[in-house]
Amino acid sequence: MIAVAYRKVDSDIVRRVRAIIPEHKRVMTEKPDLAGYSFDGSFGTYMPELVVQPKSTAEVAAIVKLAYEETIPVYPRGQSTSLSGGPLPVEGGIVLDLSRWDEKLEIYPEDLIAVVSPGVLTSSIHAAAEKAGLMYPPDPSSSAVSTIGGNLAENSGGPRGLKYGVTKDYVLGLEFVTPQGEIIRTGGRTVKNVTGYDLTKLIVGSEGTLGVITEATLQLIPKPPKTATLLAIFDDIVTSGQAISKVLTSGILPSKMEIMDQACIHAVENYEPSGLPVDAEAIILIEVDGHARTVEEEIREAGRICEAIGARKVQIASTAAEEANLWKARKMVSPAITRVKPTKISEDATVPRSQIPAMFARLKAIREKYNVNLVVFGHAGDGNLHPNIVADKRDKEEMKRVEQAVTEIFEAAIELGGTLSGEHGIGNMKAPFMEMELGKAGLQMMKLIKDSWDPKNIMNPGKIFPAPGQRLNLTEG
Amino acid sequence: MIAVAYRKVDSDIVRRVRAIIPEHKRVMTEKPDLAGYSFDGSFGTYMPELVVQPKSTAEVAAIVKLAYEETIPVYPRGQSTSLSGGPLPVEGGIVLDLSRWDEKLEIYPEDLIAVVSPGVLTSSIHAAAEKAGLMYPPDPSSSAVSTIGGNLAENSGGPRGLKYGVTKDYVLGLEFVTPQGEIIRTGGRTVKNVTGYDLTKLIVGSEGTLGVITEATLQLIPKPPKTATLLAIFDDIVTSGQAISKVLTSGILPSKMEIMDQACIHAVENYEPSGLPVDAEAIILIEVDGHARTVEEEIREAGRICEAIGARKVQIASTAAEEANLWKARKMVSPAITRVKPTKISEDATVPRSQIPAMFARLKAIREKYNVNLVVFGHAGDGNLHPNIVADKRDKEEMKRVEQAVTEIFEAAIELGGTLSGEHGIGNMKAPFMEMELGKAGLQMMKLIKDSWDPKNIMNPGKIFPAPGQRLNLTEG
Repeated sequence: MIAVAYRKVDSDIVRRVRAIIPEHKRVMTEKPDLAGYSFDGSFGTYMPELVVQPKSTAEVAAIVKLAYEETIPVYPRGQSTSLSGGPLPVEGGIVLDLSRWDEKLEIYPEDLIAVVSPGVLTSSIHAAAEKAGLMYPPDPSSSAVSTIGGNLAENSGGPRGLKYGVTKDYVLGLEFVTPQGEIIRTGGRTVKNVTGYDLTKLIVGSEGTLGVITEATLQLIPKPPKTATLLAIFDDIVTSGQAISKVLTSGILPSKMEIMDQACIHAVENYEPSGLPVDAEAIILIEVDGHARTVEEEIREAGRICEAIGARKVQIASTAAEEANLWKARKMVSPAITRVKPTKISEDATVPRSQIPAMFARLKAIREKYNVNLVVFGHAGDGNLHPNIVADKRDKEEMKRVEQAVTEIFEAAIELGGTLSGEHGIGNMKAPFMEMELGKAGLQMMKLIKDSWDPKNIMNPGKIFPAPGQRLNLTEG
Repeated sequence: MIAVAYRKVDSDIVRRVRAIIPEHKRVMTEKPDLAGYSFDGSFGTYMPELVVQPKSTAEVAAIVKLAYEETIPVYPRGQSTSLSGGPLPVEGGIVLDLSRWDEKLEIYPEDLIAVVSPGVLTSSIHAAAEKAGLMYPPDPSSSAVSTIGGNLAENSGGPRGLKYGVTKDYVLGLEFVTPQGEIIRTGGRTVKNVTGYDLTKLIVGSEGTLGVITEATLQLIPKPPKTATLLAIFDDIVTSGQAISKVLTSGILPSKMEIMDQACIHAVENYEPSGLPVDAEAIILIEVDGHARTVEEEIREAGRICEAIGARKVQIASTAAEEANLWKARKMVSPAITRVKPTKISEDATVPRSQIPAMFARLKAIREKYNVNLVVFGHAGDGNLHPNIVADKRDKEEMKRVEQAVTEIFEAAIELGGTLSGEHGIGNMKAPFMEMELGKAGLQMMKLIKDSWDPKNIMNPGKIFPAPGQRLNLTEG
């Protein structure tokens, strides 16, 4: 990346920003206000110099144009649920808080699309689509509190990735402000569009480093009328991996397929006893969706497959209440594990499905080698595991071990043919590992795009691309 | 685009190419051989200076590196079924015929992926996947004769786009040679991957202007066990458009939903009488896929919806043979219309589904205004229509009218919120219309990427980006 000397936000800049956004409370300069924008769901705190809350494309374009002219970093931000440091203002500068811009949420049932402004909560899109008999499939676990703008920037995944894909697969078009403050439209309102390069899919998942998304056109699908769920208990984790493969090659494509390891089961049972078998090495939850008769047949067939391959027990929910109950344990994992220790390092290394048993073995070895509190759960059907390490960041010695363990988790994922990040993004924390996955030439092709669009590197600097010599650091910052 | 003076292929270049590919017949310099590479499925002929048939990544990389050093245009090519001029060597130079490189076709059932070399026929991938109980959903009409490399370069669509999306939606990773001859890998073997920019989806659909795809990792899905088909006949085309919308908002997501207009019905009946109603304004074909019971229920429900809205007649196939018979008429459309006149201009303007009736009205007006032989069929479910004009390119006066009609078709699609091209690509013919859809700034962002990756503009020059003042020209070339 080109080395850049950024201008600091001074009273002249504040005056010019206030001319763009006259409403006083939408431009924040006071320390206590700024402090609320210094962290996200990941690690480390960084103070911005200025926070603005734009509520129109014109405002965003004018601020970005000013920032480009004056070479000031711009950090777009939704609800700051990022687990990879996506919105952290690591170089100071201006935070664009887009979470207040949530006015537009239009559903066009005939075209099967939704048009939304960036601050709309993802769960609001789910609800609006459902009211029209439709579904917006991407369902990151944060959907009740995260904005669609953040989901787009990070290309969020979720449990339904297995059957339905990720956020990117449902974005047909964008309105977008370039790093130089130009407003462009990419894609459109149709599923098929091959008019030039696919800027839509380049921008989605670029973590705010290429510009600011100001509107999105999303694809919806008819809502499947019914779901069915089972829970399968396994004495050993390798068998559970085989069951996953067997179900997936039987002609059944589940809508969700989640796994929890023993450490995870223990954490949940310690947090709120739910009758989970603490001696089991793994439990799997499978959901299928579709027409009523089909889902009944399919869930029974999936149950038979699990039993035939050696599940200790299979439990099929027969009512909606029972279904919700089965999913309760999975939903408790996150709160349960943060009760163990205060600092949670949440990873999302993803491997080809066939390598899930091997990845579990590697994670077990890493846990023992570095003596860290490592629990594993995640989206087994698409190979997207969530190894979570819980620690205490005040304990420097422990955090050093966590650093080494995290590094080895990334190495294991890549050695098994997988990726650093399935759905959380790279942000600042994983940047040092990019070359390990992409090679020098691969990373260079990404840099060429970044440099050509944003030659002054004002858009979300410090993310994705490693600084020379940058290493993982969990003991400072 | 940067203006470039290309070096001609001389004996020195041929000698150096032969050092890379010693096998004599895989390097062609003779006029009769070159002539076979001067055209594709679109319009116009352009002679290359040299044709090579690489069969390994090392060969491709070495030739591209040489071409970059010497500033010689490189035109990658599959089976030349392109309808937009994708592989036409409009600046001469070197054609890379990748169609002979078809050795690798590996299916990994546990990972639900296929790994293929660029020359593999798309239908071979369909067959190999099916043998493993799986499906590769993209099904361009050319799949029996087109290569996956061509499909990837153009991001091919097909009838199943409605339910399953297009080629891009099934590409997980690529091996790729950059314009400077570097070999990189993008993406991987997992559905979820957010490690940096999505170069995979940028490259797919970039029409060979960013480099050469040398291997692809494709996503497969469990094969749906059953299909069911109906034919619905409509007295007026607006009603048929309403039926399409009504089916799609009823909770049914058909795997295919095709429409043929009256001119199309006439052409088929003149070609081979099939008992189609020549007084009907439109017929619709609907296919659903999934589990046996579900498809039966769904096809009956779709039939009821068509009848309720005013279809003259609905016919549901009750056997596989009847199903095949219903699809026969649709398959005859292409040969039938080229019997009318020798030159076929095949467009793929795509509009939001709700605009299909309006687009039909616009096309009818264009047909009358310019007195051209315009027939319309296509993938109604996703708004991807195929207005085809049949003419005789020796008749300059007629071709002038065709030029004007084609221009108005593009204008109509964009005015209705659609796109120039749903699945055929831009190539050289549609390049002059890019700015109309994308605006100056949108097109400029694409150019920045092209210029940063390929500063000498050696990869497929003359495509996507219009030359200054370039206009549609169907009377020369």
